[in-house]
Amino acid sequence: MASELRLDQLPSYAKLRELADKLRKIAIIEFLTVDAARACDFTCSAAGLQLDYSKQLIDRNTRETLWQLAAEAELPARIQDLLNGAEVNNTERRPALHTLLRAGGNGALADKYREVVATREAMRVSAEKLISGQHRGFTDAAITDVVNIGIGGSDLGPRLVTEALRPYQNSIACHYVANVDPADLQDTLLDLVPETTLFIVCSKSFRTEETLTNSLVARDWMRAAGASDSDLRRHFLAITTNLEAATEFGIPRENCLPMWDWVGGRYSVWSAIGLSCAIAVGWDNFQQFLAGAGAMDRHLAEAPIASNMPIMLSLLEVWNRNLLGAGNHAVLPYDQSLVRLPDFLQQLTMESNGKRVALDGGALDYPTGPVLWGSAGTMGQHSFHQLLHQGTELCPADFVLPLTTHTGMHKQHRRLVANCLAQSRALLLGRTEAMAKRSLLSRGYDEERATALAPHLAMPGNRPHNVISMQSLTPATLGALLALYEHRTYCSSVLWGVNAFDQWGVELGKEIGAQILTLLEDASRPSSMDPATNRLISEWRRAQAPEASE
Amino acid sequence: MASELRLDQLPSYAKLRELADKLRKIAIIEFLTVDAARACDFTCSAAGLQLDYSKQLIDRNTRETLWQLAAEAELPARIQDLLNGAEVNNTERRPALHTLLRAGGNGALADKYREVVATREAMRVSAEKLISGQHRGFTDAAITDVVNIGIGGSDLGPRLVTEALRPYQNSIACHYVANVDPADLQDTLLDLVPETTLFIVCSKSFRTEETLTNSLVARDWMRAAGASDSDLRRHFLAITTNLEAATEFGIPRENCLPMWDWVGGRYSVWSAIGLSCAIAVGWDNFQQFLAGAGAMDRHLAEAPIASNMPIMLSLLEVWNRNLLGAGNHAVLPYDQSLVRLPDFLQQLTMESNGKRVALDGGALDYPTGPVLWGSAGTMGQHSFHQLLHQGTELCPADFVLPLTTHTGMHKQHRRLVANCLAQSRALLLGRTEAMAKRSLLSRGYDEERATALAPHLAMPGNRPHNVISMQSLTPATLGALLALYEHRTYCSSVLWGVNAFDQWGVELGKEIGAQILTLLEDASRPSSMDPATNRLISEWRRAQAPEASE
Repeated sequence: MASELRLDQLPSYAKLRELADKLRKIAIIEFLTVDAARACDFTCSAAGLQLDYSKQLIDRNTRETLWQLAAEAELPARIQDLLNGAEVNNTERRPALHTLLRAGGNGALADKYREVVATREAMRVSAEKLISGQHRGFTDAAITDVVNIGIGGSDLGPRLVTEALRPYQNSIACHYVANVDPADLQDTLLDLVPETTLFIVCSKSFRTEETLTNSLVARDWMRAAGASDSDLRRHFLAITTNLEAATEFGIPRENCLPMWDWVGGRYSVWSAIGLSCAIAVGWDNFQQFLAGAGAMDRHLAEAPIASNMPIMLSLLEVWNRNLLGAGNHAVLPYDQSLVRLPDFLQQLTMESNGKRVALDGGALDYPTGPVLWGSAGTMGQHSFHQLLHQGTELCPADFVLPLTTHTGMHKQHRRLVANCLAQSRALLLGRTEAMAKRSLLSRGYDEERATALAPHLAMPGNRPHNVISMQSLTPATLGALLALYEHRTYCSSVLWGVNAFDQWGVELGKEIGAQILTLLEDASRPSSMDPATNRLISEWRRAQAPEASE
Repeated sequence: MASELRLDQLPSYAKLRELADKLRKIAIIEFLTVDAARACDFTCSAAGLQLDYSKQLIDRNTRETLWQLAAEAELPARIQDLLNGAEVNNTERRPALHTLLRAGGNGALADKYREVVATREAMRVSAEKLISGQHRGFTDAAITDVVNIGIGGSDLGPRLVTEALRPYQNSIACHYVANVDPADLQDTLLDLVPETTLFIVCSKSFRTEETLTNSLVARDWMRAAGASDSDLRRHFLAITTNLEAATEFGIPRENCLPMWDWVGGRYSVWSAIGLSCAIAVGWDNFQQFLAGAGAMDRHLAEAPIASNMPIMLSLLEVWNRNLLGAGNHAVLPYDQSLVRLPDFLQQLTMESNGKRVALDGGALDYPTGPVLWGSAGTMGQHSFHQLLHQGTELCPADFVLPLTTHTGMHKQHRRLVANCLAQSRALLLGRTEAMAKRSLLSRGYDEERATALAPHLAMPGNRPHNVISMQSLTPATLGALLALYEHRTYCSSVLWGVNAFDQWGVELGKEIGAQILTLLEDASRPSSMDPATNRLISEWRRAQAPEASE
């Protein structure tokens, strides 16, 4: 482990700074015009995905220097560390072995791999019992609906996968509840029938505040419908390591599937946390999903730096972030079923790389992980694209584009594709004031008005972005896509010198939350909070009706 | 109109620059400790909302200077321009009269107001016929489901309002389809029955690509179920100005409600575009929604700068953006029913203020509208809050907090409130390495490990944010909240000197989209695109199966 790495101390970093100063004045379209091979050469393929980075603000020299940077950071060795179970999560003294979950085997990690295989088999059995109608509720009716109760990594991943693979959906509908706001569960239960509903409680500790709170309400709901304590086992599964707490709740040991401390929440959709997905789309499809990710893992391990897709994405992330100064990154899937992808990637990237401390505990004085945001095209075009094209903030972007549709409506899908390519081209080219004026004149505006309006239609262009495309969105390409972003995240963490697998920054909020809850629950308790928090607590107290003080 | 305004030329701007340099080194908590009155004085109230800005990185002197800046920008006069129908949208030579839609009358605009009242009455009649079951489908069954087909402003507003007011929902379910991706409409129709479904087509021009495409599919679906051409009037309403196109589609004039060019799409939820909301929650509640917004309009018009909530929010936006350098702004509603608020505000703010050109056409050399993003608490705590607390990017934030719940589950709701206040306090305070070490030692870590881990748990705090609270989320407070952000957006546009009501930056993408569509539809057509676009078109062609070339 090179825990003392500092990005800005790597030998090539100074050269990248010079290149950035130079390139900032150049139009990307010039690179494409001058260098006939660029449109093909600035692409790479892996695991059914194609990455086109020809519209990034880099020339061949910069690309070489970025590759050099990756070598100086010993990225290939750090990748082997990840895959071979080294303690990449140094603050928690753990490996991060999400790749083992989709592997066909790993000799060095045979013990852990045996557990993985056993858990996979248990997942398969659970899923198939539910899908076949063999698993029945307390009135002997077949289960028709599954509610996954989890938050963060126990929610965003399975939710995304279930929604993205809707064309593969079988007869059991999966729902997701995360928020501690009681409205979340209440709204979900409105349409469901206790007798045919099964809950999957996803919490490593079985103590996550939101998940436990919602699970208790779900249990009440089940009991109110007449389920006895011994009936609960027909309606609750748990993904947890805390078998004792689960048993006490009413979920017996045989209804529990394990999690491991060597899989982080945001990397866990491949584990038993993905059970709801396996139920929604069936075991074969879930296997394909794992296989797609496995193919990306092999690409990561084997491809040289120059054709390694996750490495390239991460070099571009660092280039845009640290050399060009972008504070955010937009993800724009042109596929309605990937509408939740930005939510998922928000957690993956911002929780992993939203750090200001190096692996060795030293302070970093350069920017690390950016804000990740976005939404599905074409909807964003009618929302925030105005700012992408004409705003003052640099927003590097990834377009994600399945080239065909599952809907059978090819003609309509063509419009979606045309829109995606058009946005990419418009971001590349922009248009000058003179071009804008010509366009206005051709649309019938008079000379004076065209002159006045032209600056409002002019756009600088030169907005760097990637296009990630695939033949179609299948379980395998979805798996590859999520693994791609996982690895981009890890590679960027190596370059930035941060630990992508801990999240100590969320601890303080939890501690303070517990303190404030006691103040809300007992008005007589003296508060030692700051004046602003005290005022908000008083405001909350005044707002409570007498009946609320149960 | 002061179309030549430049923020950085206003007399107070230089002083703000000096203040920012000074304040950057100060901890906000010191202001709160030293100034006992701050927790109460740095708040303001309007229309049922309370804004607490005591945790912004400003002192009293800075606040005075910001107020001075507002006066120098003649913000009160510009607000009167907006409300009185001046041509605030100068590039399109129009007023922006969304406030008229929720007014009780406006003498100066009597003609337009008469149209508003007539349309409101037509909306009421339409909504009540549907809710009462009087409006029936072609088999004489009552309508049970309404599908709103629109995109951007014709989608995000009504979608948010319907979801946010779910506790007020009556028997008709409203659905929203926006994306040109055929999967969006297809997934929605899966659960619906043509005989009991009504579509509302929302498109000012009746030519919006996505909306027209989806409406044609909806019409086919209705016909396939046996509806004749003359039956279509029972299943389609339109919100449009293009009566001819609507009639040709099969929607007769009497089924059309008007839009006006003096209401922009992203400000239109108060117009007939809100019809689906009125159907979902009933007319009285929709009236309350309008009334809440109207109350905020009166506050905007009448409150002096020092207690004017939208003005204060916009001054803080400009302070954080231009003086402290924040490129983004997070919105964190602690209420599951406001989960779509960030999506709505993304359009409102980024399309309005994502501009680099002044009203007079001159180039601006300071930052304007930031990226707006966010998601509902507590879900974000398990996702991106790590970066809010410990990342290197400054993310100013608004917490939005209803103090009570509609669910009746007060005890559980208390946890939500406690989490919100805790996040706010943690962002304010942070924790030093020494405090982190003490916390670790008290949790049983040994000296060596606590020393090593402490830097990873330390956080700088001092993250500026607002808390916007309300007694409960009702139609009226929701209306006030959306109007608050509309006015913040307008006030910021005045300070930045941009036009908040046009969106010329999205035109080029539409033009290129039409060109690329012809290339996808006819492979024999020669392409004059750039090499990267040509390569993607070829990749798309190769991906198409023969059956797709219909």
